[in-house]
Amino acid sequence: MAKSPETEHPVKAFGWAARDTSGTLSPFNFSRRATGDEDVKVKVLYCGICHSDLHSVRNERGNSQYPMVPGHEIVGIVMEVGSKVQKFKVGDKVGIGCMVGSCRSCNKCTNNLENQCRKMVLTYRSTYFDGTRTYGGYSDIIVANEHFVVRWPDNMPLDAGSPLLCAGITTYSPLKYFGLDKPGMHVGVVGLGGLGHVAVKLAKAFGTQVTVISTNPAKKQEAIEHLGADFFLVSNDQDQMQAAADTMDGIIDTVSAVHTLLPLLGLLKSDGKLVLLGSPKALELPVMPMLAGRKMVAGSGIGGMKETQEMIDFCAKHNITADVEIIPMDYVNTAMDRLAKADVRYRFVIDVGSTLKAASS
Amino acid sequence: MAKSPETEHPVKAFGWAARDTSGTLSPFNFSRRATGDEDVKVKVLYCGICHSDLHSVRNERGNSQYPMVPGHEIVGIVMEVGSKVQKFKVGDKVGIGCMVGSCRSCNKCTNNLENQCRKMVLTYRSTYFDGTRTYGGYSDIIVANEHFVVRWPDNMPLDAGSPLLCAGITTYSPLKYFGLDKPGMHVGVVGLGGLGHVAVKLAKAFGTQVTVISTNPAKKQEAIEHLGADFFLVSNDQDQMQAAADTMDGIIDTVSAVHTLLPLLGLLKSDGKLVLLGSPKALELPVMPMLAGRKMVAGSGIGGMKETQEMIDFCAKHNITADVEIIPMDYVNTAMDRLAKADVRYRFVIDVGSTLKAASS
Repeated sequence: MAKSPETEHPVKAFGWAARDTSGTLSPFNFSRRATGDEDVKVKVLYCGICHSDLHSVRNERGNSQYPMVPGHEIVGIVMEVGSKVQKFKVGDKVGIGCMVGSCRSCNKCTNNLENQCRKMVLTYRSTYFDGTRTYGGYSDIIVANEHFVVRWPDNMPLDAGSPLLCAGITTYSPLKYFGLDKPGMHVGVVGLGGLGHVAVKLAKAFGTQVTVISTNPAKKQEAIEHLGADFFLVSNDQDQMQAAADTMDGIIDTVSAVHTLLPLLGLLKSDGKLVLLGSPKALELPVMPMLAGRKMVAGSGIGGMKETQEMIDFCAKHNITADVEIIPMDYVNTAMDRLAKADVRYRFVIDVGSTLKAASS
Repeated sequence: MAKSPETEHPVKAFGWAARDTSGTLSPFNFSRRATGDEDVKVKVLYCGICHSDLHSVRNERGNSQYPMVPGHEIVGIVMEVGSKVQKFKVGDKVGIGCMVGSCRSCNKCTNNLENQCRKMVLTYRSTYFDGTRTYGGYSDIIVANEHFVVRWPDNMPLDAGSPLLCAGITTYSPLKYFGLDKPGMHVGVVGLGGLGHVAVKLAKAFGTQVTVISTNPAKKQEAIEHLGADFFLVSNDQDQMQAAADTMDGIIDTVSAVHTLLPLLGLLKSDGKLVLLGSPKALELPVMPMLAGRKMVAGSGIGGMKETQEMIDFCAKHNITADVEIIPMDYVNTAMDRLAKADVRYRFVIDVGSTLKAASS
């Protein structure tokens, strides 16, 4: 018979878990594996709340298992290292993002694309190689193979930096891969939420001109004055959209709701690239505008470990962090409700280190 | 008042034109411009019937104007050259494809992408810079700026080579641009018609493994034994499709009917590319499979003049021609009806040089 989450591993752990599709989180005793030769054991200090945490705890994609401890934007301090660990020592600041395992030998893994490995293990809601479920960063400690742990730059804030482990790599990777990182290019960013606001900062740091495209005119001031975007388009203002037609080299589309691609394809120059990061089930693809201009629509999800390290170092160098609202652990259910209404500018981060024990007492 | 097609230019010409949306073609007297300094005047010998000719004469895209002389897969002999013509002399074999003009100065034109120029002039059903309509290759002569005329390789048949001017460049260009031309890659070709059968030959010549994907199991023998494909998949055979999942670097999709992209995306490896060449109005795009594997769906249409010349030279070197059925001019309406039923293997070519006058007598 399978052991309980509390007894399957030797190291006691404590966090907050969702127990069913209501998604309501509550205190949860479970366990972590002993620190293996290549593992680091991390005391969690901060954990960002990704929009996919909300999808997952509420089973909005239909494949959730409970109890579930979410969280894949984890920053903390190394408490213990295994005998073969090379990159870290006790006391180091580190980050753990969306994945904690992969096969390490396939063509994808050996080309630094662990995120595309068929055996990739998500930081939570996956099954690890030992057959146990993975639990995320809404918890006091986490144990992970050092390959899936990133060095935290000295000048990167622990709190406001934590969302970069998901939102940062998710936007950095496609900007690089699709060649939208060249100074002077014109890049559009659709949707100004957790991903979108980081995409704007990264694209500006690459030296591109950035236009934020949003349904909400009220976001214009924020986009331009605070985030540093160059231009702002209201996506349902046809005159504005027409005036900007055929001007963009690429668009980062962070919207998860069903939306129309035709106006976005119209903004692209020939050979332009529309990169989808959100996950609506299906979208209508207009074909003729793609043929004439050799345009493409692509998808992208997170990035490999080497690139994740590169991203966090790049952000540190360019003083890029997420805009965050720091919350205590016991605020998490309220935060989830607010996130569902997009009522956050732009990412909640749980102060796990200071508030988790208080919540459990 | 605008002059009639017969009197607007000084040089008498004769061809077959559609007069209305029935698409029925009949003999038509019109005129061509005098050979300008940079022009070549060409006696048309062969002209392929592209599927888009059928769409155009029947106004299936809603923007046709009549009378219309179709034809953009034109091969012939130079009869006269302008004073500044450098590439050609009288007697040269030449080809004219889908376009006869562009601005020659924009960023696209100066980068050999005349096909993406906003002022690009189609070989027929466009308005030329002098304000007159363009008429295509179902005609005795054609006059064109030498920039839009390709040198015909000595060993390239005039008849079976003519469809390459559209079907060849339309498939060659995306295989090159999207990097699907590397030996050892695995390329899928969806649809075995005018474009698809040339795509198979080109992809094989590039040294890739080729799988033909079709709804019609009867095409297997033809695809493998005659065209040289390595594998064949029946697209609605889920077992076959599942067995081939995650194996292809790219897919050239030539289907113009509405069809489902999900099974095709499943055939692609991570980072795989699905290139649409057909022109259904819209297709349903499943997003999640694109995110996980960083897959892309792109469109492509013909190619620039430099690449068109490169393509025809490549085909000559590798003995690639289209599979054609040569017909007399007065068979064209029957041919159009058969083409509408996909009853041709794989391209009709009109023997204009030998049969046009007979048809008019």
